[in-house]
Amino acid sequence: MPIYDFAVGQTNPETFPVEAFKDAALQAIDAEHENFNQYPGAKGHEGLRIAMALRESTREGIDVDPEEIAIMNGSMQAVTLVGQALMENKGDIVITEEFTYVGTINAYKGIGLKLLGIPMDEHGMRMDVLSEQLKRLEDLGTLPKFIYALTTYQNPTGTCMPLARKAQLITLAAKYNLPLVEDNCYGDVHFEGEKIPSMFAMDDSPNQIYIGSLSKILAPGVRLGYLLAKEPMYSKIVSQRFDAGSNYFAAAVVAQFYKNGIWEHCETANPVLKNKRDLVDTGLRKYLDDICVWSLPVGGLFMWLRMPDDVDMQKLALTANAKGFYYADGAVFHVDNEDRPYIRLAFGHVPDELIKAGIPVLAEAIKECRTSNAARDFDTLF
Amino acid sequence: MPIYDFAVGQTNPETFPVEAFKDAALQAIDAEHENFNQYPGAKGHEGLRIAMALRESTREGIDVDPEEIAIMNGSMQAVTLVGQALMENKGDIVITEEFTYVGTINAYKGIGLKLLGIPMDEHGMRMDVLSEQLKRLEDLGTLPKFIYALTTYQNPTGTCMPLARKAQLITLAAKYNLPLVEDNCYGDVHFEGEKIPSMFAMDDSPNQIYIGSLSKILAPGVRLGYLLAKEPMYSKIVSQRFDAGSNYFAAAVVAQFYKNGIWEHCETANPVLKNKRDLVDTGLRKYLDDICVWSLPVGGLFMWLRMPDDVDMQKLALTANAKGFYYADGAVFHVDNEDRPYIRLAFGHVPDELIKAGIPVLAEAIKECRTSNAARDFDTLF
Repeated sequence: MPIYDFAVGQTNPETFPVEAFKDAALQAIDAEHENFNQYPGAKGHEGLRIAMALRESTREGIDVDPEEIAIMNGSMQAVTLVGQALMENKGDIVITEEFTYVGTINAYKGIGLKLLGIPMDEHGMRMDVLSEQLKRLEDLGTLPKFIYALTTYQNPTGTCMPLARKAQLITLAAKYNLPLVEDNCYGDVHFEGEKIPSMFAMDDSPNQIYIGSLSKILAPGVRLGYLLAKEPMYSKIVSQRFDAGSNYFAAAVVAQFYKNGIWEHCETANPVLKNKRDLVDTGLRKYLDDICVWSLPVGGLFMWLRMPDDVDMQKLALTANAKGFYYADGAVFHVDNEDRPYIRLAFGHVPDELIKAGIPVLAEAIKECRTSNAARDFDTLF
Repeated sequence: MPIYDFAVGQTNPETFPVEAFKDAALQAIDAEHENFNQYPGAKGHEGLRIAMALRESTREGIDVDPEEIAIMNGSMQAVTLVGQALMENKGDIVITEEFTYVGTINAYKGIGLKLLGIPMDEHGMRMDVLSEQLKRLEDLGTLPKFIYALTTYQNPTGTCMPLARKAQLITLAAKYNLPLVEDNCYGDVHFEGEKIPSMFAMDDSPNQIYIGSLSKILAPGVRLGYLLAKEPMYSKIVSQRFDAGSNYFAAAVVAQFYKNGIWEHCETANPVLKNKRDLVDTGLRKYLDDICVWSLPVGGLFMWLRMPDDVDMQKLALTANAKGFYYADGAVFHVDNEDRPYIRLAFGHVPDELIKAGIPVLAEAIKECRTSNAARDFDTLF
């Protein structure tokens, strides 16, 4: 059984707004119960679309039309529908970061897409490699159906793609007329520094597809996310849903909860998460500075640790688990499931005292699984 | 704008249990908010699975294992996943009733299945025709991937398949080793007489797939349905979902509301619906007995009216709508969208006084769209 459970990407239960959520539920049931009797339809609850348009327009500084938003059963429904809408034949290629969310990998492989992972650096997907690969695929007549990128607080690596690189990505996608999917499901779990604009705010193309979520800023159990796209892309994707719409009751409650915007709740929840990130970082500096390199994400829920090359990764999992320490192995996030010397620490839901007590346990396990006591011979994360 | 809105299949908003639902929401949020922070997973909320196993085992008189239930985003997610799991190639055949739910038609055609509709009589899908078609398809080497049937209070026809015919259907499906999908999404909206056993209670085969819903006995806006199946079929279907599970918050509230079973709520809601059905029937007898034949369903939300052959169906829609009367045209439910002289009246959400006032309006419209004043020359619904 896990004592120090850094394996699963959950946000912090301590800051769930129990009383405010109860108030919102009572108000939503009173005000909207007659609508519970109707099918929500493909677009979904109008109040939540307005609240999410306000969220996006406030962050991005541009007008966002609630009519361009479709409420989804978590961002994963949007991720899956995009694949189903844009895939023409099984075996079609989609480009992703080399390391990406395991749910996305499973969904795209599950519906029959082939994933081509682009190597990353500390700023996300590498544009030099992407450019070469697109050229190669064009020559082969097998251009990808779309490019999927987790550009912000990337899962699993914690990286953010800077503005200049986003501009390069937009240019490359436009060159080959490829839809560009920006999955911002960790968006607004932000700790420090300027927020980098989203690609839909940088580019008016109907090839821009943006995916948002309430799983990380509120709770995954409300299963609410959304798609943001312009026509004709919007209808192309939404027409792939046959579920009569997303949960209207949950949407009504969350719309009521966020009726004045999401930022007040973010100001409560995010500092607590930032403190957890800092506790992990402090522990790593104290116990693993000489042998590991890790990301210090400016938001999100994950830190990505590069292990010394002489760590036996299989043995590390067993050794750490035996001590009660659980993490996610890097291979899980690799598009081809290749073993790589990385681990992901999900710190969002770990109580502070278990972070403090846990990191030395991890350090002990890593040291037990090395074949030398040499210092690390690398200075970068990738 | 509709005045008399018999078009959409919604249940009755008057009997939505507002205060009890609010109490359930408060209790569920208090008791389970820590779990809102987790992904529900493919099976879904345990309490709701237990409540739905109790529902099925009480109705069917057999033990139903909550582990064989997977909570779905409405029954339509189950319908769609079954198609995605059992389809091997685009163009594969699925057998349905000739008239069936338009959502199912759209989902199956949308994912690439080809629908073969079997003619119906007042007891549902005709087994003589099914038997011939299966023989024909076997000879062609194009057996269907599965058979989908709405056996209870069928949408749109209101028919129920009797026990003996269900036994024939089970035998035929077994002969060709075909999965058999019983969509009981209107289940327990029951007015009178004995309930006919479900096919999963008559047959232990893992080819039995059963779909349930809370949209009709509670409200479609809670978007909760479920799949019931044995291994290996259960995993084959559930593995097609990539959405991280169904709404845990909504499921927790509904599980709390139904923690002592669904029957008390059914006893409140069903008599009000039965009265609406009777009001429609009374009106039809008074105004249309000489020219139409209709179903008198023992449950569900729909009555199916056969029109005299000399009614111009396009003109009827325009004429009725101009008088404020809306219904669903029969062609919508035909698997090949063929014009047929039928209309569906969805009575569940129509206030009693609008039923009383509406049926004479419909009768007037029908009479205006005939080319004769002859009495009907048929005595059966099909």
